Amino acid sequence: MVTGSSQRRYDYERDGAAIYRQSFATIRAEAELADLAPDLEHVVVRMIHACGMVDLPADVEASPGVVGIARTALRAGAPVLCDAQMVASGITRRRLPAANDIVCALGDPGVPELAARLGTTRSAAALELWADRLAGAVVAIGNAPTALFHLLELIGAGGPRPAAVLGLPVGFVGAAESKQALADNPFGLPFLVVHGRRGGSAMTVAAVNAIASEAL
Amino acid sequence: MVTGSSQRRYDYERDGAAIYRQSFATIRAEAELADLAPDLEHVVVRMIHACGMVDLPADVEASPGVVGIARTALRAGAPVLCDAQMVASGITRRRLPAANDIVCALGDPGVPELAARLGTTRSAAALELWADRLAGAVVAIGNAPTALFHLLELIGAGGPRPAAVLGLPVGFVGAAESKQALADNPFGLPFLVVHGRRGGSAMTVAAVNAIASEAL
Repeated sequence: MVTGSSQRRYDYERDGAAIYRQSFATIRAEAELADLAPDLEHVVVRMIHACGMVDLPADVEASPGVVGIARTALRAGAPVLCDAQMVASGITRRRLPAANDIVCALGDPGVPELAARLGTTRSAAALELWADRLAGAVVAIGNAPTALFHLLELIGAGGPRPAAVLGLPVGFVGAAESKQALADNPFGLPFLVVHGRRGGSAMTVAAVNAIASEAL
Repeated sequence: MVTGSSQRRYDYERDGAAIYRQSFATIRAEAELADLAPDLEHVVVRMIHACGMVDLPADVEASPGVVGIARTALRAGAPVLCDAQMVASGITRRRLPAANDIVCALGDPGVPELAARLGTTRSAAALELWADRLAGAVVAIGNAPTALFHLLELIGAGGPRPAAVLGLPVGFVGAAESKQALADNPFGLPFLVVHGRRGGSAMTVAAVNAIASEAL
């Protein structure tokens, strides 16, 4: 079923490297990136690439140096803790600098019972199963606002502190509020957020992959 | 590390069912859904839920009856063919009505060589490996414009026809054009697209899961 050029009906760019170049040129021409530190700019360009929206920077907030902090943690072997299987699935293993573990506990058979016992969602309850991996980890939350709120509660209760939190839950109930809470966190926790309703697994994966690829 | 209610610092909805209800109520209050057929409306609400953007319907175009056609195909056991591992990863297996296969060939070891030989991207080349599964399948393209263009070329060259194509590639080079080409396809191919740059794996997964869940 291999089609030869004689059968091509459509005119489009087929060269992967050229597609990347043109994509990033368009993003840099259209997006307001001037206010971002260079290492954060690189990450935000990748996030825009993943969602197709050049107005994203207006909603981005990050603590100073968070990209370098997360990168250093990855180089030192920190695991990436994810709230959703799609996030874990999208992270490019070969870009990770230390064959870092990628952990998503949502599918663990104990999670539904734990969620019932804690009176919260499965996404939030699954974080309890990270307990022994959380110290120094890079946390990537790309789906559930409750997971991000619960993380802040665990840290507020004296739990282990991750190296950095990429907080990008999406949606209509708690997403904006949980990201604001992360940006306002009183723990000095390094963070990256996209304020408002937007977020999601693709944007989160793009952030992790961009941070990881420069750490190699 | 289980936290009791005495340690809760944040006020937020922890009940998963209530979160869904409030989310869908917000979407129905804010999004313009009146022009959509009821079965398509259900799918679009789920897509909005996955991306947090209530202005999505303005960019949605679908051929008449595509949701029912895709649903019928899934009930009959059609595979879901995906262009990206994140799409395959996000589809909820238990919602599929016939233990349908979910196929993503991008990681096949033969793909890089095939891409070089065909002079196209790996995402497009991977479609060649679907050849014997394409007839009657539900195709879900959530990442690569080149994959969607290549699919249309294969069908234009007399290749097997899928039952329906969910065309939601994202980005700045070819995404809008490939989705317009699908919407304009001269093959009578049932389709769902989000015009423009927006799209991506989360939105695509939401569409597949919404179609599948009503097919049970």
